[in-house]
Amino acid sequence: MNAPRPGTPAADASQHLIGLHDMPAARMTALLDRAQYFAEGHDARQALAGIAICTLFFEPSTRTRLSFQLAAQRLGADVLNFDASTSSTSKGETALDTLRTIEAMGVRGFVVRHKEDGAVAALAAAAAPGTAVVNAGDGRSAHPTQGLLDMLTLRQAKGPDFSHLKVLVVGDVRHSRVARSDLHALRALGAGEIRVCGPKALLPDDGTLDGCAVSGDFDASLAGVDAVMMLRLQRERMEDGLVDSLEDYHRDYGLTVARLARAAPDAIVMHPGPMNRGVEITDEVADGPQSRVLRQVGNGVAVRMAVLEALLGAR
Amino acid sequence: MNAPRPGTPAADASQHLIGLHDMPAARMTALLDRAQYFAEGHDARQALAGIAICTLFFEPSTRTRLSFQLAAQRLGADVLNFDASTSSTSKGETALDTLRTIEAMGVRGFVVRHKEDGAVAALAAAAAPGTAVVNAGDGRSAHPTQGLLDMLTLRQAKGPDFSHLKVLVVGDVRHSRVARSDLHALRALGAGEIRVCGPKALLPDDGTLDGCAVSGDFDASLAGVDAVMMLRLQRERMEDGLVDSLEDYHRDYGLTVARLARAAPDAIVMHPGPMNRGVEITDEVADGPQSRVLRQVGNGVAVRMAVLEALLGAR
Amino acid sequence: MNAPRPGTPAADASQHLIGLHDMPAARMTALLDRAQYFAEGHDARQALAGIAICTLFFEPSTRTRLSFQLAAQRLGADVLNFDASTSSTSKGETALDTLRTIEAMGVRGFVVRHKEDGAVAALAAAAAPGTAVVNAGDGRSAHPTQGLLDMLTLRQAKGPDFSHLKVLVVGDVRHSRVARSDLHALRALGAGEIRVCGPKALLPDDGTLDGCAVSGDFDASLAGVDAVMMLRLQRERMEDGLVDSLEDYHRDYGLTVARLARAAPDAIVMHPGPMNRGVEITDEVADGPQSRVLRQVGNGVAVRMAVLEALLGAR
Repeated sequence: MNAPRPGTPAADASQHLIGLHDMPAARMTALLDRAQYFAEGHDARQALAGIAICTLFFEPSTRTRLSFQLAAQRLGADVLNFDASTSSTSKGETALDTLRTIEAMGVRGFVVRHKEDGAVAALAAAAAPGTAVVNAGDGRSAHPTQGLLDMLTLRQAKGPDFSHLKVLVVGDVRHSRVARSDLHALRALGAGEIRVCGPKALLPDDGTLDGCAVSGDFDASLAGVDAVMMLRLQRERMEDGLVDSLEDYHRDYGLTVARLARAAPDAIVMHPGPMNRGVEITDEVADGPQSRVLRQVGNGVAVRMAVLEALLGAR
Repeated sequence: MNAPRPGTPAADASQHLIGLHDMPAARMTALLDRAQYFAEGHDARQALAGIAICTLFFEPSTRTRLSFQLAAQRLGADVLNFDASTSSTSKGETALDTLRTIEAMGVRGFVVRHKEDGAVAALAAAAAPGTAVVNAGDGRSAHPTQGLLDMLTLRQAKGPDFSHLKVLVVGDVRHSRVARSDLHALRALGAGEIRVCGPKALLPDDGTLDGCAVSGDFDASLAGVDAVMMLRLQRERMEDGLVDSLEDYHRDYGLTVARLARAAPDAIVMHPGPMNRGVEITDEVADGPQSRVLRQVGNGVAVRMAVLEALLGAR
Repeated sequence: MNAPRPGTPAADASQHLIGLHDMPAARMTALLDRAQYFAEGHDARQALAGIAICTLFFEPSTRTRLSFQLAAQRLGADVLNFDASTSSTSKGETALDTLRTIEAMGVRGFVVRHKEDGAVAALAAAAAPGTAVVNAGDGRSAHPTQGLLDMLTLRQAKGPDFSHLKVLVVGDVRHSRVARSDLHALRALGAGEIRVCGPKALLPDDGTLDGCAVSGDFDASLAGVDAVMMLRLQRERMEDGLVDSLEDYHRDYGLTVARLARAAPDAIVMHPGPMNRGVEITDEVADGPQSRVLRQVGNGVAVRMAVLEALLGAR
């Protein structure tokens, strides 16, 4: 599902989904179209009948695992869960041995989460030709299905033409794989204006924000935007000394009803969850009429269905 | 599945199963009739085909979870397990956010266990209109499917007319959600005489025992009863200082073959499990001809099938 | 699946699979024939439709559990996982109560692992007539499906006639249930020569090696063999004082490319996994052309399908 490298046949290029940085807009749009079909309640119980898929999480995440599991079930696949954060790797087996072993059992698809950047890509590179690896989040690098589900949510609210949209991403972009995948997708789909806002210590300086309008002033950044994509503030940031206190963070970067009034009247609010209510977002906004947080969750299953079907279905 | 409140349409009233205190006898009987059909080995693999059910246990219980899982599988549902005692709520997410998130993924049924009284009812009250919540045990309040499976077991042994039955409930009624659900069900089905026996410190004084014949004398209470429902003695009761020792408890309230001889000759013995063998019940009784302990376990799956089908099947 | 005891009807004898010590060669061959069919990619999704199988692991092993789970799914069974190493037995319930309880829920097949020798056989002896118990490894005694999958792997490489084969088993035979099951199977199928090699402290003196050519000299033992079956070195052996260091062990009993050159040119290398790379086997050998390690893993699913189908399918 990565863009074809020169000289690489297209079929090989779409064996895995590692990130969105090199996915062509046409492929992204096709996945979103199919995801929209699934989001409307359609199943495809024969699509992956007889195919086994394993979730392989080296970093725990029940929500994301359940979402992929539901997606696989609605496609008729057999689903296995391997919690690598607690189980077999305690015997000293490497991640690659674990993947190859389960692959040798006949499992065709792997949904992998890992705390290290690039770990999922490395596993995918070593997988057998018939195996598909989907990145369910690696380090700070990428969380491509989250990026896609956010685009689906935006599209449902604002239509397929992103060229007039002003989108604001707020918070700890520096440590966020969600933000990186969102930014790649917004660029690919031609978003009109991408703004990024957060405390300087939480913004990356590595080219991630190229082409974005960057600011530390939340109130100013909100002016007239069509969508606000809030990020979760990890509590480790306090321990890292990057944020002084939750109170300070909330005062400067917490989304309240009063602040949201600066955005366009029909602006939508998104958050990848789980939310720190009272920190980066208030209850009123999280549960308010402009929130699309639960819609994002539902779209997550639909997007994962589209991805698994595209990678593992009959070709 | 709760009794209709005035002005509330019946369909809404039967959205959830929280407790048995307000379930009309007619509804209870209909569920038991359907459970009897399932107990005879029938499946209904199409009943919940395409419907996803999630077990959501904030307090661990492998036995009850497996029983619900088997019930859901025999109805053709997709089953997910969420062990909330270890996993995601560590990120600070509330129980309600967890339920709403999984609900947003398209899950239609939740089987919830929680250590706090009323927690399951609170979650049910906040669930979406199409969602069904089944209480798999909350605090000391209710364990309605256990109550129903106990009634099914009684009915199989003694027939559908409970008006001539003498039933004895023995042990730590004060801390037992099983006992509370059993007492509600026995009253609803018109049991002739309900006796309760246990040490004073383990009997409730809150109205739970209204209408029951209460005694601290186990030998006397057993005289002529048709069924003995033993309760599990939690070891915490020693730490609480409510019970002196397991030996003392066994001497006064342990069911032995000799004691059981005081009951009716065809009396049955029940226990919700897991049993403390040698404490509240001896091996000879637990494994003897009058024991219905394993029958109760089998009936548990049947009752849970009937409940899930009634709440989530085509209406 | 054990050999009939005198006076015992055959049907009863094949209720369980506990070990290979008493399995007739004809039955073993029939299972391997069927496993070969499954290894070629065939499913039998109706074979166990509607039948529930529970993995019941009192000692954790994710790999073996996943392999059985995949096998059961490809036979259409409902699969439940019970991690007895962490869950319910914490309430003091015995292993037998746990099995009987899940059996009473309608589960027909149990895949059991236990750290104590004979524990699985004891559970099987107490199971109900219609229940099948498969030993997924008990203590040092037996791991029969591993023995069968190793035979299937040998047969695929060397053909069905074992009478001319020289097979070498290397390592900690004393503590290995895998080795014991392999030796039983090799004898049953008439292997021409069985050699065993390892440090004296890790070889059993209890009759396990009767009829084998035993040596402490790895280089000499390798001469001309058709198959090398390496065993995993548990790190506990150092703590036990049975092995001085991993370096010493590797020097004396590690399989390297140079050493492997002493075997027959077309010799195959096997290992039950997970491998201690750099200890009992080098990367070059583990991933080399003579390695059948991943083939063994694939054969594991096929063998387990054959076993579950034989024990639980329509008779």
